[in-house]
Amino acid sequence: MPDKIKIFSPSTVANVGCGYDVLGFALDGIGEEMTVSKRDDGQLVIEEIIGFDLPKDPAVNTATVAAQALLDAVGSKQGFSFIIKKTINPGSGMGTSSSSSAGGVFAVNELLGRPYTSAQLVEFAMEGEKAVSKKAHADNVAPNLLGGFTLVRSYEPLDVLSLPVPEDLYVTIVHPQVEVKTTDAKKILKKQVDLSMAVKQWGNVGGLVAGLYESNYDLIGRSMVDVIVEPIRKILIPLYDDVKAQALADGALGCSIAGSGPSIFAFSKGEETALKIKSMMQEKYDEVGILAYTYMSKIGEKGVRTI
Amino acid sequence: MPDKIKIFSPSTVANVGCGYDVLGFALDGIGEEMTVSKRDDGQLVIEEIIGFDLPKDPAVNTATVAAQALLDAVGSKQGFSFIIKKTINPGSGMGTSSSSSAGGVFAVNELLGRPYTSAQLVEFAMEGEKAVSKKAHADNVAPNLLGGFTLVRSYEPLDVLSLPVPEDLYVTIVHPQVEVKTTDAKKILKKQVDLSMAVKQWGNVGGLVAGLYESNYDLIGRSMVDVIVEPIRKILIPLYDDVKAQALADGALGCSIAGSGPSIFAFSKGEETALKIKSMMQEKYDEVGILAYTYMSKIGEKGVRTI
Repeated sequence: MPDKIKIFSPSTVANVGCGYDVLGFALDGIGEEMTVSKRDDGQLVIEEIIGFDLPKDPAVNTATVAAQALLDAVGSKQGFSFIIKKTINPGSGMGTSSSSSAGGVFAVNELLGRPYTSAQLVEFAMEGEKAVSKKAHADNVAPNLLGGFTLVRSYEPLDVLSLPVPEDLYVTIVHPQVEVKTTDAKKILKKQVDLSMAVKQWGNVGGLVAGLYESNYDLIGRSMVDVIVEPIRKILIPLYDDVKAQALADGALGCSIAGSGPSIFAFSKGEETALKIKSMMQEKYDEVGILAYTYMSKIGEKGVRTI
Repeated sequence: MPDKIKIFSPSTVANVGCGYDVLGFALDGIGEEMTVSKRDDGQLVIEEIIGFDLPKDPAVNTATVAAQALLDAVGSKQGFSFIIKKTINPGSGMGTSSSSSAGGVFAVNELLGRPYTSAQLVEFAMEGEKAVSKKAHADNVAPNLLGGFTLVRSYEPLDVLSLPVPEDLYVTIVHPQVEVKTTDAKKILKKQVDLSMAVKQWGNVGGLVAGLYESNYDLIGRSMVDVIVEPIRKILIPLYDDVKAQALADGALGCSIAGSGPSIFAFSKGEETALKIKSMMQEKYDEVGILAYTYMSKIGEKGVRTI
C-alpha cells in the first residue's frame, strides 16, 4: 500500500436542465489535482491550497470533512496531509466543492487499501457537500466519483445510477466571474411548485434519460427544458437569455444553468459546434466587460482517479 | 382499400407509479374489439355497443369524437359505422375511454388508406380523451396506439417516446367495482406540490426509464414510488394499502394505482409471481364482499391492430 497518492478530480455539472438535484455529469480533463500522503500524528492537515484562497481548517474544507466521514466509518485514526491544486473558481456552479469532497475520500480510500467501492464513497463525499451547502447533495459528488452521467434516483436510501454517455456529446461552459453561492441560489427557489410544471419537468427527465440510452442527440437537447429552476435562477446571471439564445442559434442541442450557477453550459453534437459556442460565449462577456472563463470538453467518462 | 375492418385496441395503464400524466403501457390481449365500416351517407354512427351501456351519441362517444378529429384534419366527408365490443368496465383506470379513442382513429385511418402514422394518430385520439376528462391527455392513448411503454415527454409540442419492454415483465391488475371518475380523481389532487417531493418524483421517473432500458427489474420496482398522487388518490380505493403490502410481500416488483384508479396494478418478474398476486388480489376483495375483476398479462408490445 503506498503512503502517498496524486489524484485528479473532475469538475462536474449538476441539474443538467430538467434534473434539479438528481442529474449530473463529469467533465473531461477539467478539474483539480490533489496530493495526499499519510502522516504519523493522526491529524488531517491541509498543507497547501494552490490557485485560490480557501479555508485550510480541516473542519471546514470539504476534502477533509469528507475524508473524516470515511475515517469515522472505517474506524481509522490514520492521519493525512493534503495539497490541493484548484483550477476553477469557487462559486462557479461547476462543482468545485465536490471536486474536493470526492477527491478527499477517493484518495484516503485508496491509501487505506480501498475499504469501499466508488459507489459507496458517495455518502462520505456528501458530508463534504453538507459542510458548504447545509444539505448533503449528491448530484455533483456522484458524477465526480463515478464519472459520466449519473442519476440520484433516491436520497433515502441513497440510490445512484450511472447512465450512458453518447460518443459525440460535447459540453461548453462559460463562467462569468460573478459569485452565486449555492445556499443563496437555493433560497430564492419557491418551496412549492405547480403540479403542472412538475409534470413537465419529470416528462423531460424521462426524455433526457431515454436520450442518453438512445444516443439521440435531438432528444437530449429538447429534454433540457427546465420550467421550475431556470426561470428563477437565471435572473442572477448576467446575459443569460442572450447567451442561451445565441448558443441554440449556433447549433447547441440545449443550454442551461450549470448547477446553481452562475456558469452556463451548452451541449453540442461534435467538437466543432462546441468550440464555436465557446468563442461566442467568451465574446458576449468580453463585450460588456465581465471577466469570464470558458471551457470545452467531452463528457468525462472517468471520475476521480489516480494520476 | 377495404370498406370494413375489425380491430383490437388494448387496455392501458397510465402513470405507472411515479410518472403521473407522462408514463403508460399497454396490456397484452386485454382490451376491446371494434368493427368499423364505411357508409355512404357521410355520417358517423355507433350501431351497437356490446358489453356496457355507453353513449351512442357520436358527439359524446370517444371513438367517434376522435375519429371526427382525424376526418376534419384530413378534410374527409366519409361516413363510418362502429360496432364496439367492450370488455372492461368504464371508470376502471384501465384506459377504457382511450381504447375507444385509439380504436376509432386507428380504424378510420386504415380505411382511409393510412394518411397518418400511428404516432401522428395520438393527437386525434387525445380529442376523444378530452371529451370525457376535459383535458386532452395522451398517457393512455399513446401506449394504446404505439404499444409497449410510452413516455409523453411534452404536450406542447406533443412529443411521445416509445420505451423498451423488458422480456419477463408481467402486470397484474385488480379492478374493484367502485367507480372513480378521472375528473373527480383529478379534482382532489393539490394544484401545488412541495419542490422536495417533485424532486423525488423526477428522480424516480429517471430511474424507471433507466430500468426499462437496462431490463433491471429491481430498479423498475424501486422506482415505482409515487409521493405525490398515490397518497391522495389511494383514499378512494378500498383495501389499497392492504393489497399493495401483500403484493410486495408476495414478490411484486412494485404496486401502484392504475391511471386514476380504482384499479390497482402490480409488476412482477415472471408469470408465476404475477399469477400468485392475481389470486391474492381476488381473495382480498372476495373476503370483504366487494365485486372485483382481476387480470394478468405481459406488457403488450403491440398497440391497436387489425384482427
